[in-house]
Amino acid sequence: MRTAWLLVCAIVCTACAAQTVTVEQDPDTGYWQLYVEGQPYFIKGAGGDTNLDLLAELGGNTIRTWGAEQLDPRQWPDGRTMSVMDLAEELGLMVCAGFWVEHPDHGFDYGDPEQTAAQLKDIEEFVTKWRDHPALLMWGVGNEVAGPDAARVFKELDSLASEFKRLDPNHPTFTALAGVWPEQARLFAQHCPNIDILGINAYAGLPAVPQELLRQGYDGPYIISEYGPIGHWETALTPWSAEIEQSVHDKVGTYAAFHNSAITYQPDRCLGGHVFLWGNKQERTDTWYSMFLRSGEKTAAVDVMANIWSGSYPDNRAPLLHTIESSLFFSTAAPGEIAEASIDATDPEGDDLTYEWIVRYESSDKQHGGAFENTPDIVPDCVLQQSSSGSATIKVPDQPGEYRLYVYVRDGNGSGGSSNIPFRVE
Amino acid sequence: MRTAWLLVCAIVCTACAAQTVTVEQDPDTGYWQLYVEGQPYFIKGAGGDTNLDLLAELGGNTIRTWGAEQLDPRQWPDGRTMSVMDLAEELGLMVCAGFWVEHPDHGFDYGDPEQTAAQLKDIEEFVTKWRDHPALLMWGVGNEVAGPDAARVFKELDSLASEFKRLDPNHPTFTALAGVWPEQARLFAQHCPNIDILGINAYAGLPAVPQELLRQGYDGPYIISEYGPIGHWETALTPWSAEIEQSVHDKVGTYAAFHNSAITYQPDRCLGGHVFLWGNKQERTDTWYSMFLRSGEKTAAVDVMANIWSGSYPDNRAPLLHTIESSLFFSTAAPGEIAEASIDATDPEGDDLTYEWIVRYESSDKQHGGAFENTPDIVPDCVLQQSSSGSATIKVPDQPGEYRLYVYVRDGNGSGGSSNIPFRVE
Repeated sequence: MRTAWLLVCAIVCTACAAQTVTVEQDPDTGYWQLYVEGQPYFIKGAGGDTNLDLLAELGGNTIRTWGAEQLDPRQWPDGRTMSVMDLAEELGLMVCAGFWVEHPDHGFDYGDPEQTAAQLKDIEEFVTKWRDHPALLMWGVGNEVAGPDAARVFKELDSLASEFKRLDPNHPTFTALAGVWPEQARLFAQHCPNIDILGINAYAGLPAVPQELLRQGYDGPYIISEYGPIGHWETALTPWSAEIEQSVHDKVGTYAAFHNSAITYQPDRCLGGHVFLWGNKQERTDTWYSMFLRSGEKTAAVDVMANIWSGSYPDNRAPLLHTIESSLFFSTAAPGEIAEASIDATDPEGDDLTYEWIVRYESSDKQHGGAFENTPDIVPDCVLQQSSSGSATIKVPDQPGEYRLYVYVRDGNGSGGSSNIPFRVE
Repeated sequence: MRTAWLLVCAIVCTACAAQTVTVEQDPDTGYWQLYVEGQPYFIKGAGGDTNLDLLAELGGNTIRTWGAEQLDPRQWPDGRTMSVMDLAEELGLMVCAGFWVEHPDHGFDYGDPEQTAAQLKDIEEFVTKWRDHPALLMWGVGNEVAGPDAARVFKELDSLASEFKRLDPNHPTFTALAGVWPEQARLFAQHCPNIDILGINAYAGLPAVPQELLRQGYDGPYIISEYGPIGHWETALTPWSAEIEQSVHDKVGTYAAFHNSAITYQPDRCLGGHVFLWGNKQERTDTWYSMFLRSGEKTAAVDVMANIWSGSYPDNRAPLLHTIESSLFFSTAAPGEIAEASIDATDPEGDDLTYEWIVRYESSDKQHGGAFENTPDIVPDCVLQQSSSGSATIKVPDQPGEYRLYVYVRDGNGSGGSSNIPFRVE
């Protein structure tokens, strides 16, 4: 009886107990290392909170969330209702749990005691609620908060981080910067003793991050808190400022080369990274950062990360696509003009591919910093015919304006890909 | 007889006559376009002056040279002695012929009338000598000359370019900047009316170039005058400042994605680009920018460019390599320590691969701006054994110091690849 009770206690405690996570320098090499309960832990992470079973299956071990509400219980595809923390634990994943620190340039006034007190209260509630959860890896103290007045913001962030530390001494803290602007790493090192890890969100700028940190005198531990394809704010533009999205081929090469440039190749200081976005989201297009199609299929971006994390590709790989070939690319068409388009798509296993062509209005809901965007409507009756080999005949819209031609390609086995090109009607 | 003479004249004139090259804006679209004798010409270019037969065979159409001496007659592998201009013509290639403008921060004094007069005389000799050559595409007026005092340098460059224009009205001019630093494109637009095309040399920074040009108010024509892998000045570093070179896999992805980001995806303004380096050169390592092994084999970087230029890969593709796996990576070993190493190399055609493992001293001849560097010596007796499957047993040198482990992989059919990792002995 006594033994049985002890066993029950042990099980309950194991299930509920926080894991102690530390960031330490190896006494011999001086290299920085993350430890979970004393065991080295390298973050093979993804930004997002969906498709977690696949993440675990393909060799990922961590997710990143941005705000407290992402941890609220919700219903999952299997019908169960639970927090992503519990699901992560079940799958053997850990969570970099972000708290959304208010941005001074979004109207939050750090000089207003009422506003700052409310934020501190939210932090207390958040930390108290989750600090003992075994899936918790670290706390994210704000995302891309630092603006022009970085020194002041870093002091505020450090003050908030000290509150995390006071409430929970068992988990490290990080904050995520948008790239490494001049002086920011230096100011972080100077003003943030309570933030253990520097997080960097970086896209086209990622390969230069490790040296830039050193140049600013920061040789402490970092994570790449977001990385992915060339960003929409930094890519090539048409004359009417439509952003050019990379092809799947180019995205795959970019994910791999960029991951290695700042994560694999900097093992003395980099504790890992989070690929963005493990899910589907409209941001200029519904495919730009989305590693899954909206209809659920994984793309080749998932496959390349699986290979990086585990050393092998999934059994069924996603099709690889170049950019749509069409006279519409970068062009101004006449209303109602007929144009041909084709996509060069290959499936590694030779699966039969299906093609779905769509014309949408160009996105007019262009937000910043990853805020929610509405997906533009489909323009009906633009696709006159589409072949089973990847070509289509497009009737451009009758109304002058800006549009984008999309193709979605699916292999029928849970994988897909897409491409899009902007065009204009005048 | 008369007909025969006319024919001879026509042949001689065709062989000797300059081709008129222009840069024009399409009156309908406003897009910039390069024309050779009135025909649109897109630069599928390579930096370098070797392996030109292969360049032409694989779909390249242009080379870039940096200095007048590169056009001097020399002996080619087939035994003939001729200028690269004549060889290019024979192969149907054209040449962006660069003149090495002296750098003010290398000691050249633009306030000294004697020095500037000598440079102008060199320009006159150079232009007069080559302006009528049919392989001439455009003149390169300096490479990475602009330093901190960019406005002054641009005025000097424009003054030199006006001399090119005076001597040869039939070919456009370009100058090559090292990336796009703040204000440089704006200053170029302001001060360089005699330079028709802005050249940008860019590596990790390439994807952001097109938008950065617009941000600075430059929407004129440009070429990417150099692009390639992540540069040694911007890559990850070991704690002892040894530069980490990308794997072949990562280089291939980088060449393709970067090419497309700033060249393919900007057809309204980009006139093409030159991949660097079509040849072999020691710059930190003998493989960093080298698209060919020193022993002559083409690498996968050549294959990916062939695919971009022509839409198809060469019949025999080069092996694809990841980075060397070894406990030596990023590590400090004891003198004489034994370590295992292996390379994951795959050949697209399944060719039998051979492996050559070498330990060299770390490069101590580290120059800037692409100046000549000596290749460090091989450390003898470090490779105890190497298998036919890509593994090796390494005895690290007895002398403390900095070293680099290399593997060269060859397919026996003219293709190869390599990888290297730095390590230290203490």
